[in-house]
Amino acid sequence: MRPSQRQAHQLRPIHITRGFTKHAEGSVLIEFGDTRVLCTASVEDTVPGFLRGKGTGWLTAEYGMLPRATHTRGAREAAKGKQSGRTQEIQRLIGRSLRAVVDLEALGERQVIIDCDVLQADGGTRTASITGACVAVHEALDGLVRRGVLAANPMRELVAAVSVGIYDGIPVLDLDYPEDSACDTDMNVVMTASGHFVEVQGTAEGHAFTRAELDALLDLATSGIAELNAIQRDALGLG
Amino acid sequence: MRPSQRQAHQLRPIHITRGFTKHAEGSVLIEFGDTRVLCTASVEDTVPGFLRGKGTGWLTAEYGMLPRATHTRGAREAAKGKQSGRTQEIQRLIGRSLRAVVDLEALGERQVIIDCDVLQADGGTRTASITGACVAVHEALDGLVRRGVLAANPMRELVAAVSVGIYDGIPVLDLDYPEDSACDTDMNVVMTASGHFVEVQGTAEGHAFTRAELDALLDLATSGIAELNAIQRDALGLG
Amino acid sequence: MRPSQRQAHQLRPIHITRGFTKHAEGSVLIEFGDTRVLCTASVEDTVPGFLRGKGTGWLTAEYGMLPRATHTRGAREAAKGKQSGRTQEIQRLIGRSLRAVVDLEALGERQVIIDCDVLQADGGTRTASITGACVAVHEALDGLVRRGVLAANPMRELVAAVSVGIYDGIPVLDLDYPEDSACDTDMNVVMTASGHFVEVQGTAEGHAFTRAELDALLDLATSGIAELNAIQRDALGLG
Amino acid sequence: MRPSQRQAHQLRPIHITRGFTKHAEGSVLIEFGDTRVLCTASVEDTVPGFLRGKGTGWLTAEYGMLPRATHTRGAREAAKGKQSGRTQEIQRLIGRSLRAVVDLEALGERQVIIDCDVLQADGGTRTASITGACVAVHEALDGLVRRGVLAANPMRELVAAVSVGIYDGIPVLDLDYPEDSACDTDMNVVMTASGHFVEVQGTAEGHAFTRAELDALLDLATSGIAELNAIQRDALGLG
Amino acid sequence: MRPSQRQAHQLRPIHITRGFTKHAEGSVLIEFGDTRVLCTASVEDTVPGFLRGKGTGWLTAEYGMLPRATHTRGAREAAKGKQSGRTQEIQRLIGRSLRAVVDLEALGERQVIIDCDVLQADGGTRTASITGACVAVHEALDGLVRRGVLAANPMRELVAAVSVGIYDGIPVLDLDYPEDSACDTDMNVVMTASGHFVEVQGTAEGHAFTRAELDALLDLATSGIAELNAIQRDALGLG
Amino acid sequence: MRPSQRQAHQLRPIHITRGFTKHAEGSVLIEFGDTRVLCTASVEDTVPGFLRGKGTGWLTAEYGMLPRATHTRGAREAAKGKQSGRTQEIQRLIGRSLRAVVDLEALGERQVIIDCDVLQADGGTRTASITGACVAVHEALDGLVRRGVLAANPMRELVAAVSVGIYDGIPVLDLDYPEDSACDTDMNVVMTASGHFVEVQGTAEGHAFTRAELDALLDLATSGIAELNAIQRDALGLG
Repeated sequence: MRPSQRQAHQLRPIHITRGFTKHAEGSVLIEFGDTRVLCTASVEDTVPGFLRGKGTGWLTAEYGMLPRATHTRGAREAAKGKQSGRTQEIQRLIGRSLRAVVDLEALGERQVIIDCDVLQADGGTRTASITGACVAVHEALDGLVRRGVLAANPMRELVAAVSVGIYDGIPVLDLDYPEDSACDTDMNVVMTASGHFVEVQGTAEGHAFTRAELDALLDLATSGIAELNAIQRDALGLG
Repeated sequence: MRPSQRQAHQLRPIHITRGFTKHAEGSVLIEFGDTRVLCTASVEDTVPGFLRGKGTGWLTAEYGMLPRATHTRGAREAAKGKQSGRTQEIQRLIGRSLRAVVDLEALGERQVIIDCDVLQADGGTRTASITGACVAVHEALDGLVRRGVLAANPMRELVAAVSVGIYDGIPVLDLDYPEDSACDTDMNVVMTASGHFVEVQGTAEGHAFTRAELDALLDLATSGIAELNAIQRDALGLG
Repeated sequence: MRPSQRQAHQLRPIHITRGFTKHAEGSVLIEFGDTRVLCTASVEDTVPGFLRGKGTGWLTAEYGMLPRATHTRGAREAAKGKQSGRTQEIQRLIGRSLRAVVDLEALGERQVIIDCDVLQADGGTRTASITGACVAVHEALDGLVRRGVLAANPMRELVAAVSVGIYDGIPVLDLDYPEDSACDTDMNVVMTASGHFVEVQGTAEGHAFTRAELDALLDLATSGIAELNAIQRDALGLG
Repeated sequence: MRPSQRQAHQLRPIHITRGFTKHAEGSVLIEFGDTRVLCTASVEDTVPGFLRGKGTGWLTAEYGMLPRATHTRGAREAAKGKQSGRTQEIQRLIGRSLRAVVDLEALGERQVIIDCDVLQADGGTRTASITGACVAVHEALDGLVRRGVLAANPMRELVAAVSVGIYDGIPVLDLDYPEDSACDTDMNVVMTASGHFVEVQGTAEGHAFTRAELDALLDLATSGIAELNAIQRDALGLG
Repeated sequence: MRPSQRQAHQLRPIHITRGFTKHAEGSVLIEFGDTRVLCTASVEDTVPGFLRGKGTGWLTAEYGMLPRATHTRGAREAAKGKQSGRTQEIQRLIGRSLRAVVDLEALGERQVIIDCDVLQADGGTRTASITGACVAVHEALDGLVRRGVLAANPMRELVAAVSVGIYDGIPVLDLDYPEDSACDTDMNVVMTASGHFVEVQGTAEGHAFTRAELDALLDLATSGIAELNAIQRDALGLG
Repeated sequence: MRPSQRQAHQLRPIHITRGFTKHAEGSVLIEFGDTRVLCTASVEDTVPGFLRGKGTGWLTAEYGMLPRATHTRGAREAAKGKQSGRTQEIQRLIGRSLRAVVDLEALGERQVIIDCDVLQADGGTRTASITGACVAVHEALDGLVRRGVLAANPMRELVAAVSVGIYDGIPVLDLDYPEDSACDTDMNVVMTASGHFVEVQGTAEGHAFTRAELDALLDLATSGIAELNAIQRDALGLG
């Protein structure tokens, strides 16, 4: 019934490739089906001005989409000279999501910069970005521990994200592009491994949704995120 | 217990002043306590390029904050030469919220542009903006009916917005600035008069929240929005 | 004879409301008839780089117009990404006018930033801005005296501004929008309470003007500014 | 007594070189002493959008200063990515001044674009620009007559500009840079050959000026502009 | 002797992966050792304004580097709001190089847009981009032939590029990052399969080079490009 | 046979005027036929951030073209808010060319900024800029020696540039605009007085060129640059 023949509660095939590029402290290619995002985590020894001398660290994120990641070519934001509102929303969301699980005081006066660049888009680029960025950041912070800079990894727990929506009247998990385009209600949920919400963003451009629909979507998302956490743990070699 | 001595489920005093300025087709000053936003709705006879000749209308929104609407002066976005990510997020949210309740085909090939400008900020500027913009747009569309341009007002139902959050462990309604600053979890809810959700945006930068907390916040928001709808109806002289 | 039925030498009704918003050190709503401008004065404890360590203060101004302050909606400068030449001319004029009456050395190493934001435009927004900004700055500087930061208010005397022009062959005072649009010669005069000129800006886009016309316009402006000074004194509770 | 040993009412040596560059329809190098400005007038067969199909022409101006036209190098505006407020003020002034003497309807649907680029600055660049631009535009319009495009030159009369100021207590004509820097009151006057004012812009950043001082400055400017008109007529070979 | 132990005339391992992403008409991942560039070719049915209605096509290129493609993170150009001079130089070079081998009239009124995005940088990103873009464009044009839009592929011959330089006194082929950083003279050569030069760009920031050195570098480049052409032909399945 | 009737190996008339403007430490007007470029060299006592405290100097260049330097008026880059890719390429080339002959350590912690502004364009503006800038920089550095700041002029040798191309099948020296427009292959060569190459930039947008053609062009350029060096020496009064 879904264009991809998936069950309502079924994720797309998820693949996480660590060390995809060699320079970044953390570098992960994450695939949610045909959506492919390169997530890197860079560690720098300075913090933004507003935190200097406060003994605490910072984590921020930037997001981009290659011009031809999409069906038809989109304008290159660097050439247009500005990032779209959509890009800014997504990169702010990625940053908040990861800050929610990293102990910035334990990180000390250093900064983690996440870059999520979409190589190929097929729906769910922001949720794939958060899920992949979590692995890249963990990898980068592990490096600080390995090099003796930090005593323990300051990421308190893993975080992942998934989209849910009502497609053809049925709540479904992990929308791909054909579903996303046809869907009135779309919700992105960011959740920690311990099952707490970090972000819930539900939007009904077409048809407003009921409390019962919202509840069904949250249930679907909760189960999907548990699966994603297992895949993240696996990629990170955590028991 | 709340800094403002309000009950947990109590809104700030809400005032809506119609016709606050004279040129706009709809012009409303909305006050949520000390938060004051001027919302205007302008009707233009052209639509953006992507809709030309399609027989349907459009509605969009812009948002701004006067530099000294806040405790300390913020840089003027026009002087900096760009709108912040926060500004863009808010204006996209206002636009989506209103498009959810306006029948754009019935509007015909014309565009409504909402401007929400914060004269004084004390928390909740985006929810006040949506609630006030709804009245301004209704007023502007009523004008089209009165002038015989449209047979009926194409706004299907009213829409309003309110913030909720967990302050000092307790879910509270309509956060003011002191609460907003001290609050780990903050949720903005946009809802129609018929009780359906248009947007749910919950964020936990500090401490992630449980499903039970989420449920309590949604309950609070639902009752607050019913109150706001009554105030809107009153301002518009709807039975 | 004038569209507003005023006498040639008659100002529009002028209202000055102090404390219009609560955060700014000085906050004034000034009305010249239907022209309404919110003028705030913010005091900051730093000066621009070129003055650091020189023991002297600074005063600067920014100006903006809400998109729908006008008959038809104007583009938001923050969204366009730049301030127009007109905006820059006006804000530079406001700054120069106020610096002419404030003893910047007596102010010490601090900066006053004026924001003039036009809520509703009906001609004369720059002269209303200067006249209102003078009251807002005085109010803000009084606050420094009251808090014991300064021994005396460093504003040496009040300053006000008014427009004059030749409408239908007759020199008239304080042009409103219908007059401004129909008028070949337009002059803005900024003057101190002691009757000295700070700025004289006369422009003839259509028809160049004679020395006799210039003299008549200066006479009108001089008497108008005396009236404005009285209203400013009244608003400030100065004897 | 003046740094340059000039009399109070004495202009600097003025030179006008026509045909300074070969591509422009009008091209003039004007020198006011050591101030040297290249003024070109380009004629294009289209008008800006707001005038299309209205049967009337347009004239506009742009102004720039080479980075090392000044004592110390100024930043290149093209590299900074924006024109300063000062630049915009000056180019708007040049455009208004020339539009005041050109019959835009007689020009027909074509546009004259003036470029004033300061090769060397020593005070008075805006007045030199206007005075030189007038000659360049006249030359360009003569070309349209010569080519049979227009029956008569649509410039109704010549226009010129000069600065005046109070230096060391004495009103003086045509300020050079040392005077300009030391001068509290500075006025730029733009006037037609028939002795009418097009622009009067007097500014007192330091010390406000009296009506008597204003009158003395206007007298000086009037005589200086008569001299400039004679030099322009001479350059243009007008009787 | 070279840091990579290569012979002076030895290329790095070159890999070309076709169809690396699925949406673009041509999509190639090219690897010159550790340098990895994703090259896509997008075909659009419109041409830029200056070519409309002229019956000829166009080809242009854009270039970008992911922020963490490099040893230390570089600022994202989309966030800075402008492309660097280096980026613009490279994308103009890629465009010119490909236009030299494509018959734009045979292409008809359509446009090919190349995007070269560097996923990982280790020297030679511009030469890898040109070499990969050639394959991507060929693939995209083959698609037009396969779909019956064009009768024959309008690429007249293949084009490839390689860098050469003088490292430690010896002319070497295909500089990697350690060589590039240590090298005084650096030359990029773009050449067709038939052995003609399209671009020769030699630069000596440190030590100027002799004609004999130039000749040796051109010889090296010529042989390297022949090897690259063979690899391109192989990737494209051309005999 | 050449539009200008020149021999294939003949330069246009070259004129160098020193001291063309008075403020800059070095100021040269260079003319290659009708191409006229004002080159100034400014000496500043600070270096860019990345060199501070390293005991070495810097030299950089900026380039611009007056809007009506060309046959039809080009947009002013300051008004458009950005420099074109072409402008950036040229100014980077000028900077590299001069840095190749100046001993930046001997210069000490100071910076030379070159400004090349094209007053009139007729082909070859970048080669005229380099050739003129060399004289202006030499002049400015001589000034440092004369003032006792430096013991010797840190310019090691002169540098000059010329264009060559294949026009109507024949290699020709120093292309003017009519040749440049009609020419498939265009090469700019920058060379020191001792006959070493600093930059070689050959481009074939239309028709790729052979090694034999390249050799012929390099020969022509070498002889042309020897002539230019002689003219430079003459202008500088070097034996």
